[in-house]
Amino acid sequence: MAHIALPEGLPGIAGGIAFRPETAGPMGELAEVLLRGPSTLSAGEREMIATFVSGRNECYFCRTSHRAIAAHQLDGNYALVDSVCSDYLAAPVSEKLKALLAIAGKVQKGGKNVTTEDILQAKGAGATDIEIHDTVLIAAAFCMFNRYVDGLDSFTPTDQAFYDYVGGRIAHDGYKAVLLSPEIRAAKSISG
Amino acid sequence: MAHIALPEGLPGIAGGIAFRPETAGPMGELAEVLLRGPSTLSAGEREMIATFVSGRNECYFCRTSHRAIAAHQLDGNYALVDSVCSDYLAAPVSEKLKALLAIAGKVQKGGKNVTTEDILQAKGAGATDIEIHDTVLIAAAFCMFNRYVDGLDSFTPTDQAFYDYVGGRIAHDGYKAVLLSPEIRAAKSISG
Repeated sequence: MAHIALPEGLPGIAGGIAFRPETAGPMGELAEVLLRGPSTLSAGEREMIATFVSGRNECYFCRTSHRAIAAHQLDGNYALVDSVCSDYLAAPVSEKLKALLAIAGKVQKGGKNVTTEDILQAKGAGATDIEIHDTVLIAAAFCMFNRYVDGLDSFTPTDQAFYDYVGGRIAHDGYKAVLLSPEIRAAKSISG
Repeated sequence: MAHIALPEGLPGIAGGIAFRPETAGPMGELAEVLLRGPSTLSAGEREMIATFVSGRNECYFCRTSHRAIAAHQLDGNYALVDSVCSDYLAAPVSEKLKALLAIAGKVQKGGKNVTTEDILQAKGAGATDIEIHDTVLIAAAFCMFNRYVDGLDSFTPTDQAFYDYVGGRIAHDGYKAVLLSPEIRAAKSISG
């Protein structure tokens, strides 16, 4: 049971969203703009950064959800997402994404850990200022989302089919369309 | 100099806001709803929670800014804000706020640190579910804002008069009115 009376059976952040729609609106907008808005980083790359940070914050719900969303943005390539989370330097991704993941990992521990060298490395690998900005903000935002979900002890499904289904829906229709709709309740039912 | 080409001279989060208005909108909305929207927690109480978390994250800009905003919401009582940040259990605030600060301190370290006992303590001191929800989210949101400001190595004024001036303006007019306006540039000029 969650720490507070979140609506029955809504998983992860969906519980907090339904409980407090006033704060859900701007959080949904932020996720939408940052992870799915116009960008020179693909949605798959941005979702891998989100998954990577959520893994380091040990947030099971966010890590597993964004792993599925990322995979659905990458032609179902769960193996690629997993390789980034387990050892990104050895993963088959661009040098630019590796440098951005290094920055995201520093931000997860605290913003002051990011050094001029980290930034030069990213720029040397072709990252633009906006890509660096968005990486810092994605990492920072997931330090919020992860704490929000775990700080309320939100309901956390363990059935992978649930995450794969919702991940596919969110990859296709977006955060607001899925998380603010009754869709997620229907998804819940397939997790038993 | 900031890590990326943020607009010249804009302090702290104002630099990121001007650089990327697409993400500034939802972040400003979130701060507005969470810290200044209708609530049974006073704006002063909520700003003290924000200041407390920013202090623990060692974010000088956010800590000093929200300290000033909190003080302006509390009839200029900087001493009260400082007492909460240095030793909240000994501070002259309600048992309810102390219990909420304990939860905020746990969230700052990671959401899973919040225990059922922490929640029972807060409820026993009169905290409602919405007050607990908002405390968790304020703490989580400042783990984002703090990392955003420091992760970009934003310009950080050191003149207290700057923070007192902007804190007064924000306490009076709100985040969006001040941070998204040219006002803050004028404020900057008084810091030399």
